[in-house]
Amino acid sequence: MKTDMMRCAIVGLSGYTGKEVFSLLLNHPQVRVSYVAAQNTTGPVSGIWPEFLNRTSLVCQKFSVKETVKHSDIVFLALPHTESMKIAGALLKNGLKVIDLSADYRLKNTQTYESWYGHKHVDAKNIHKAVYGLPELYRQKIKKAGFIANPGCYPTAAILGLAPLVATRSKSIASIIVDAKSGVSGAGRKASVNLLFSEVADNFMAYKVLSHQHTPEIDQCLSQLAGHGVSVHFVAHLLPMDRGILETMYVQLKGPLTLKQVHTLYTKFYKIEPFVRVHPMGAQPEVKNVAHTNFCDIGLALSNDQKMVVITSVLDNLVKGAAGQAIQNMNIMCGFHEIEGLL
Amino acid sequence: MKTDMMRCAIVGLSGYTGKEVFSLLLNHPQVRVSYVAAQNTTGPVSGIWPEFLNRTSLVCQKFSVKETVKHSDIVFLALPHTESMKIAGALLKNGLKVIDLSADYRLKNTQTYESWYGHKHVDAKNIHKAVYGLPELYRQKIKKAGFIANPGCYPTAAILGLAPLVATRSKSIASIIVDAKSGVSGAGRKASVNLLFSEVADNFMAYKVLSHQHTPEIDQCLSQLAGHGVSVHFVAHLLPMDRGILETMYVQLKGPLTLKQVHTLYTKFYKIEPFVRVHPMGAQPEVKNVAHTNFCDIGLALSNDQKMVVITSVLDNLVKGAAGQAIQNMNIMCGFHEIEGLL
Amino acid sequence: MKTDMMRCAIVGLSGYTGKEVFSLLLNHPQVRVSYVAAQNTTGPVSGIWPEFLNRTSLVCQKFSVKETVKHSDIVFLALPHTESMKIAGALLKNGLKVIDLSADYRLKNTQTYESWYGHKHVDAKNIHKAVYGLPELYRQKIKKAGFIANPGCYPTAAILGLAPLVATRSKSIASIIVDAKSGVSGAGRKASVNLLFSEVADNFMAYKVLSHQHTPEIDQCLSQLAGHGVSVHFVAHLLPMDRGILETMYVQLKGPLTLKQVHTLYTKFYKIEPFVRVHPMGAQPEVKNVAHTNFCDIGLALSNDQKMVVITSVLDNLVKGAAGQAIQNMNIMCGFHEIEGLL
Amino acid sequence: MKTDMMRCAIVGLSGYTGKEVFSLLLNHPQVRVSYVAAQNTTGPVSGIWPEFLNRTSLVCQKFSVKETVKHSDIVFLALPHTESMKIAGALLKNGLKVIDLSADYRLKNTQTYESWYGHKHVDAKNIHKAVYGLPELYRQKIKKAGFIANPGCYPTAAILGLAPLVATRSKSIASIIVDAKSGVSGAGRKASVNLLFSEVADNFMAYKVLSHQHTPEIDQCLSQLAGHGVSVHFVAHLLPMDRGILETMYVQLKGPLTLKQVHTLYTKFYKIEPFVRVHPMGAQPEVKNVAHTNFCDIGLALSNDQKMVVITSVLDNLVKGAAGQAIQNMNIMCGFHEIEGLL
Repeated sequence: MKTDMMRCAIVGLSGYTGKEVFSLLLNHPQVRVSYVAAQNTTGPVSGIWPEFLNRTSLVCQKFSVKETVKHSDIVFLALPHTESMKIAGALLKNGLKVIDLSADYRLKNTQTYESWYGHKHVDAKNIHKAVYGLPELYRQKIKKAGFIANPGCYPTAAILGLAPLVATRSKSIASIIVDAKSGVSGAGRKASVNLLFSEVADNFMAYKVLSHQHTPEIDQCLSQLAGHGVSVHFVAHLLPMDRGILETMYVQLKGPLTLKQVHTLYTKFYKIEPFVRVHPMGAQPEVKNVAHTNFCDIGLALSNDQKMVVITSVLDNLVKGAAGQAIQNMNIMCGFHEIEGLL
Repeated sequence: MKTDMMRCAIVGLSGYTGKEVFSLLLNHPQVRVSYVAAQNTTGPVSGIWPEFLNRTSLVCQKFSVKETVKHSDIVFLALPHTESMKIAGALLKNGLKVIDLSADYRLKNTQTYESWYGHKHVDAKNIHKAVYGLPELYRQKIKKAGFIANPGCYPTAAILGLAPLVATRSKSIASIIVDAKSGVSGAGRKASVNLLFSEVADNFMAYKVLSHQHTPEIDQCLSQLAGHGVSVHFVAHLLPMDRGILETMYVQLKGPLTLKQVHTLYTKFYKIEPFVRVHPMGAQPEVKNVAHTNFCDIGLALSNDQKMVVITSVLDNLVKGAAGQAIQNMNIMCGFHEIEGLL
Repeated sequence: MKTDMMRCAIVGLSGYTGKEVFSLLLNHPQVRVSYVAAQNTTGPVSGIWPEFLNRTSLVCQKFSVKETVKHSDIVFLALPHTESMKIAGALLKNGLKVIDLSADYRLKNTQTYESWYGHKHVDAKNIHKAVYGLPELYRQKIKKAGFIANPGCYPTAAILGLAPLVATRSKSIASIIVDAKSGVSGAGRKASVNLLFSEVADNFMAYKVLSHQHTPEIDQCLSQLAGHGVSVHFVAHLLPMDRGILETMYVQLKGPLTLKQVHTLYTKFYKIEPFVRVHPMGAQPEVKNVAHTNFCDIGLALSNDQKMVVITSVLDNLVKGAAGQAIQNMNIMCGFHEIEGLL
Repeated sequence: MKTDMMRCAIVGLSGYTGKEVFSLLLNHPQVRVSYVAAQNTTGPVSGIWPEFLNRTSLVCQKFSVKETVKHSDIVFLALPHTESMKIAGALLKNGLKVIDLSADYRLKNTQTYESWYGHKHVDAKNIHKAVYGLPELYRQKIKKAGFIANPGCYPTAAILGLAPLVATRSKSIASIIVDAKSGVSGAGRKASVNLLFSEVADNFMAYKVLSHQHTPEIDQCLSQLAGHGVSVHFVAHLLPMDRGILETMYVQLKGPLTLKQVHTLYTKFYKIEPFVRVHPMGAQPEVKNVAHTNFCDIGLALSNDQKMVVITSVLDNLVKGAAGQAIQNMNIMCGFHEIEGLL
């Protein structure tokens, strides 16, 4: 028994993200899962998710702040947005480290949050405490953080795909289009007709065209990186597959760059990163190669006039786009090796 | 405009079966859809099912007996079981021809119905009026029928696969196992977590093992065919695909038969059938070859000791297993060419 | 027997496109398939494609010009590019009408063909005879044509999605990006490791980024439409599904337009078209709704600054993107009703 | 660098099984991959399988006995059958431990091998040295073995599902039917038209009905277990998914058993097994729950007359059905903890 290890709680076990956090923590050598809860589902974890049969005797509880505080050192909130903000404050006040996988603490401006998510923010005072948990950009802040707003799946792929250019050449960028495609698990585990197998299989469609709620999250991060306002055109599509995101990004430049220049920019930018892999020139990343991993793979191409960079960025929306990144953040916050439990 | 044509009503347009009936009737040269209704969904058909955009101006109504009677000569009930039995009687009393695609009128014994479906039957008096709509076995009765109990998808594949042996050699049969696999659309269009894409894709499982409610329907028909009680062991499985059923049937014989004998038996039995295709010896049917068609394809194999016949039977659960067979029944009842609108 | 009907030959029956042409012609009321051939596959059609069991007694022949001429009035060439150009000339010379589904006669400039396809063109003299078979733009020319270069699948979706804007506002367009996603059948039926189920399922990737051979075909047609040179940035992606294309097109305008203006432009442009459906404002087309049909469905959206139009265009790559469009061309050429056999 | 660790070689890296062995060994704490080879593919592993980018610098070599011997202590042969038997002897003679994942050394009778596989066996003298590597039945023999014939995927699921009954009640068994369904990766990575995405997706079929080459392997093992000849009726089917096997087994008993009796029999039989999970009575295993794991999950049901036991057995054909079981065998042979690298 790993009794002396750091104790982790998961709130929201019945969703796909909560399950993925649980699965990853089960194999993490430095921590143990000490408490699991959900809002409406209770009972043995192996009853809720039979893949854990014989692997855990934990029982999922109806969520209680008191019990969470009693049994854990760090909490993963794998809840739908608007639910996290109701409980994060109480957990923080009781001294727990909190990693929130919802969107509730990602946007620094509550008005932006409220207009894109259509709900009033009920815990505005804690927003400024939350560090945006994208290790490749904010590792130093994460080290010192007690509260993490874990990035969205689409924003992770977009920001990692755009950061090298935006951070170093933002003045040369005329416009950015993000054409994003995601597997279905990104929509969560809700009984909705439009997520049925018979609706999604053999089908493909765009949705929330130019109006997806992840857009301001991308803009906020890129603007911070550029030092001035940056906004992208973002279109989401639903793929007939379970896991994985691929985003094709079109960056219109004001002046030409060579592919070699762009490639060098990217490989240098991510030189020390354990989870970002820039593909060789001419090669394209595939979703299959990052499924069930914490990698974000990036491919680069350039138009003949050298003024349109096409960046493809792939990741597993449940891992680097959610649970894996949350573990990565935990590793950094807690002083573990950053790749622990993830490779 | 096909104004002088036979007028068809569809009740239950918002389900997959109702949509399939609508789609087939739209291309039927002898009839027109004059009225469509559902229990909870109303509005333009092309709003409910955008594939019909520019193809129909019909509006789905909240179901009313009076309006159905006023606007139609024949009614297709594409409703969940327990719903049909509440309204079929009123439609019949008003002189409409009725084809019920639910299970409500298939079982002649109400006790059997009630124990397998878990609901009291509220229209027992009309059960005997319903002809079991399997044209290959009951064509003459269907011709004279005003009320059809359209067979279930699993029973259609099982009965067509077993009928030649059971009708001619039932005394030589020691036991029958039906190992059935179905695409997801057979479960209907309900917002249920276990029908989500993320649950069904990359997955396969048995369900209702030896306890599926289609079992007594198969037994009832085979017993009638044999002239004595026949019962099968039936196990259902859920395939990660939208449409199609394959059933693998194991018939243990008391004495040997040659494959040639079995094959001849089958080809003779189905010699004149437009929608049953017995494959050549050695060939196996595939779901893909019957998808979107009204065919049931059959393959035959024999064990070395010549006492185990393995029959494979495939069909599209939404066509020959539901809507297509309903149209076939309509064609027979109404004196149209049996294949009209189906080939 | 439809002995007095127009006689159709299909060359290339063993591919997905050839099969689709065969399937559509089988249900066409004005013609009969009189001759089928392939380059390497021979034998009964129902042996090559068991879905046609009991539906045809035709036997696929090794291709011969002489036999084709003897048995047919019109020929569909469903061959890989570079193969059509070897035989189209001989068929034309013998007075047959020819509809070529390959790329061989689409590009008017042989140098462009040779640089994008990597092969020398061996029948340059017949290129100018071929009419580009996109009925929505070239219906009058098709009526008088004896030789059709049937458009590619990607170009059909792109051109139909862009034509209204390019034809009427080309001077206001600053740039065009086409982000295209296709099902696997578009790659044809070749035994290639990268088309295996295990490689394609649960996967998604970009390919031939900014270098797909359909790009010059799109540019050629749009330039003709605009009256000046137009070129697009085109990126292809492979979807984990069999049929269907969705292209998301980003048109950067020099000045603003309202969504209402754009929508009106499109609905007027396609007012009389039987196979193009412009979706209501706010609605997005889905691949599922055009699968197995000859429709191209179009959706429209606009950025907040009213200067970025996002057009989504979907079709079935084997139908409107190939075989269906070929039948539509035949209908026009032969004076049949344009929708015959297609609705 | 894990320089002092046991050195593993993989021959056949370019297939799905070879890749899976590589992937599992990469995460194994007690060994390192020291040599990888294939018959036709050479070059960096991360070029052949980009998922290993940044994770390995190994280069795949053209296979040579000498190099294999020089660089490794144990060799995994992930080759097609008939290939392993050409090289296993030389590797054994040089003192290497060998785990052969092909079928070449599984059948003890060369005539049986030759009649089912259609090839002469060229290394008959080493067949008796090979231990059949099913740890749940042969753990003690495996401990002392230097040469393992790793079981087939179908046989592993069948034997584990049947062993408790066959080992303890074989005299009461009247007949056994195995209705097996497998994902496509079981067929290997060969460029074959019938394995294309467009052929497999949305499709399902039986194949090699009553004539699959895995049948004698199942019979051989069950007969040994029973102490007398046992033979099964085996039918294989191809599922439209990548990974996973489910086998539904019908055991006809001569006399009745209660479900409780059967369930107790199974739970006792597998009480100490780390990788076999008998589901609670009433629950059915699902492929999804064992995908990417070394588990075999088993479900049990009984007919009303208590004489037909229906056993469902699921596993991942590439893990417990191939590579995972091979690692499990290595762990046992080498004195590692049996679950090392597998949980």
